[in-house]
Formats: sequence, structure tokens, C-alpha cells
Amino acid sequence: MLKLFYAPNACSLAPHIGLEEAGADYEAVRLDLKAGEQRNPDYLALNPKGRVPLLITDKGPISENPAILTWIAQAYPEAKLAPTGDAFAFAKFLSFCAGLSSGIHVNFAHAFRASRWSDDEAAQASLKAKAPANVAADFKTIEGQIKGPFVLGQDYSLADAYLFVFVRWGKNMVEMSAYPKVMAVHDAVAVRPATRKVLADEGLA
Amino acid sequence: MLKLFYAPNACSLAPHIGLEEAGADYEAVRLDLKAGEQRNPDYLALNPKGRVPLLITDKGPISENPAILTWIAQAYPEAKLAPTGDAFAFAKFLSFCAGLSSGIHVNFAHAFRASRWSDDEAAQASLKAKAPANVAADFKTIEGQIKGPFVLGQDYSLADAYLFVFVRWGKNMVEMSAYPKVMAVHDAVAVRPATRKVLADEGLA
Repeated sequence: MLKLFYAPNACSLAPHIGLEEAGADYEAVRLDLKAGEQRNPDYLALNPKGRVPLLITDKGPISENPAILTWIAQAYPEAKLAPTGDAFAFAKFLSFCAGLSSGIHVNFAHAFRASRWSDDEAAQASLKAKAPANVAADFKTIEGQIKGPFVLGQDYSLADAYLFVFVRWGKNMVEMSAYPKVMAVHDAVAVRPATRKVLADEGLA
Repeated sequence: MLKLFYAPNACSLAPHIGLEEAGADYEAVRLDLKAGEQRNPDYLALNPKGRVPLLITDKGPISENPAILTWIAQAYPEAKLAPTGDAFAFAKFLSFCAGLSSGIHVNFAHAFRASRWSDDEAAQASLKAKAPANVAADFKTIEGQIKGPFVLGQDYSLADAYLFVFVRWGKNMVEMSAYPKVMAVHDAVAVRPATRKVLADEGLA
């Protein structure tokens, strides 16, 4: 059986929703990041990066959301969770997901985990101070990328579930009403049965 | 005809090598990042992020290396540049590429472009000071991921070309002899005819 290591409201929320959308048979294993469970030797043996999410498949572990979301979409093609059959549409899906991973997620992390990049407290405060402006600029770019009503157009994909995570984080940092297409994706994802079940399972609803 | 926007020795080197490995008919368009050409209105209309690489296909532009490298591999399947036919192997390819994009590239950027994350000069100096330790930690993780002789095992893929970029950058920042599997990938990529042609074309050889 598939096993997903997650932390509540972390970016692991996206593949958690993905597994539920797919109707997959899976076990969700919660890690307490504040207690440092992601650095337990047993977990580091599976994922030396010490991060979530991690998906354990029958062939081995997969890290990094663009890869995990793609694997779920390919393993459950009948759920139509990504346009994997059209090379250009799939590239746009991957581009969007990879952009979230290397862009807005990194900019949020400067607010949440500034100590990754500096050991100096004044410098950490400087990173936290600039993070909202970078996150806002990212949402502006993302707003321009959304075809509507979903990220890729008419059809839901796991790019929407991934964006949903960052809207949840962004609400506490920037004025989200400036991004109506982003918020429309958020609202459409929020009402889906799979999303509602996973939010409840993670203790967020 | 395909058009790749690149800057010499930037991470666009990976898809540049990829197009050459594929035997693609393409035009490589150089942007002078120091002169700010990536912020020209004509370019921002194609890529609002103002970054390289950007690949223009007959269906539209694609940004982000994990997406571009995958598109090249899928468009030229006979070149066997990624294991796109095996869902788990492809997930490992994507995971490796996405990890480079959101991990080591970001850590290098704290040395090269600290002003992205702080407007304070002392904080920028603090980011630059910590960057080599983060890059070294990333190379240690990558060393453990490489199956050998190539990243994914016996067969070359564009994950190798992508790693090649960061080894070129890393040589000026950390002691690369600590990562023999990484260096073996670098050395195997360096001698390939496609790599040699692209290094010459970018003025790096």
C-alpha cells in the first residue's frame, strides 16, 4: 500500500489531496516537524533531505512535489489529474508545479525558516521583512498564468491542489483579494469532496 | 523552429545541451543578464518571470527546467534523454531535476543574487557567507542519490546535463573532490559531443 509522509498544512497537503482525488489505497503518516521527526534516522534513511512530502511506492520512495503529483496522475489515469497524454499541456503542468516549488515556496520559507540561509538574527529578520513582497510578486505572476477557471483551463488538475496550499499560507501574509483568478482556483478546490476529507484528516477543517 | 533563450553558463546550459543531444533544429538566443535584457518588455511578454531558460515551441513558451527538459525528452523519444516510459523511473528523473531547481540552485542564488531576499547589505553578506555550506550539504545529498555511473544508473539522461551546470558553478565555491560520483557524472557529460559543441557555442570552451 502507498504511504504518504506529511505534516499538517505543509506542502504535502497537495499530494495528500491528490491521493484522495485518485481514489488510491494509501496510508497517511503524520510527522511532527516542530518535534523534529523529519530528522529521525528512520525517516532520513527514506528521505535524506528530511522534508515532507515523501511518497513510498511499491518500487521505492519519491520526493519533490512535481514528481509525486506526476506519479499520482500517471498511476491513476482514470482520475485525470494531469494532462500527461499531451506533451505541451503536460509541460505547462510541470512548469507551473516546478515554478511553485522553486519560486513561491522558497519565498515563503524565508519568512518561516530564515535560519536555513543565515545564522545571524538581524539578517533573518531582514529576510522575514522582505518575504511578503516576494510572495506578492509571485502571486501576481501566478495570476497571469491561470487560464481559468482552473490553472490549466477548463479541467481540474493537481496543479490546482498545489496552488491551494500556497493560498492557505498567503492569506496570513498578503492581501489575496488582489488575485481573483488565484482565489477562484482556491475556492473551486476547497469545495471538492477530496479536499474536504483531507482537510478534516489533517485536522484543518 | 524551436527557440531557446539562454545566458552563457546559466542553468539554461542544461536544455541547450538537451536540444543538441536531441538533434533538434533550434535557434539559441543569447540574453545579456548583466545588461538586463531579461527585463526587456518583449521578453517579459514571453516569460513574466524574467528568467532563463525559456523554450519557445510551436504551441507556445515553456519555462522551468524540469518542464523544459521533460518536453525535449518527450519530443525526441529516439534520443532517449529521460525514462518517460516508466512511471517510477520518470518520477525519479523528475524528483532529481525538481530537487536541483528548488534546492541547490536556490542555495547558489543566495551567493549570486542575495538582493532577491534582502535589501540590507549586511544581511546580503550573511547570505553569501552561509551559501557555500548549504551548497556543500546539497552536493552531499546528491552524491547519495546518484546510482552511477549516471544519475539514474547505466543510462545518460538530461538529469546528468542539469547536474553538470551546478558542478561548473560549484567548482568556484566548494571542494568538489568530496563528491566523486558527482564528479564522475560531470566528467562523463563533459566529453559528450553535444556538450562540447554547446560549451563552444556559449563561449565557455
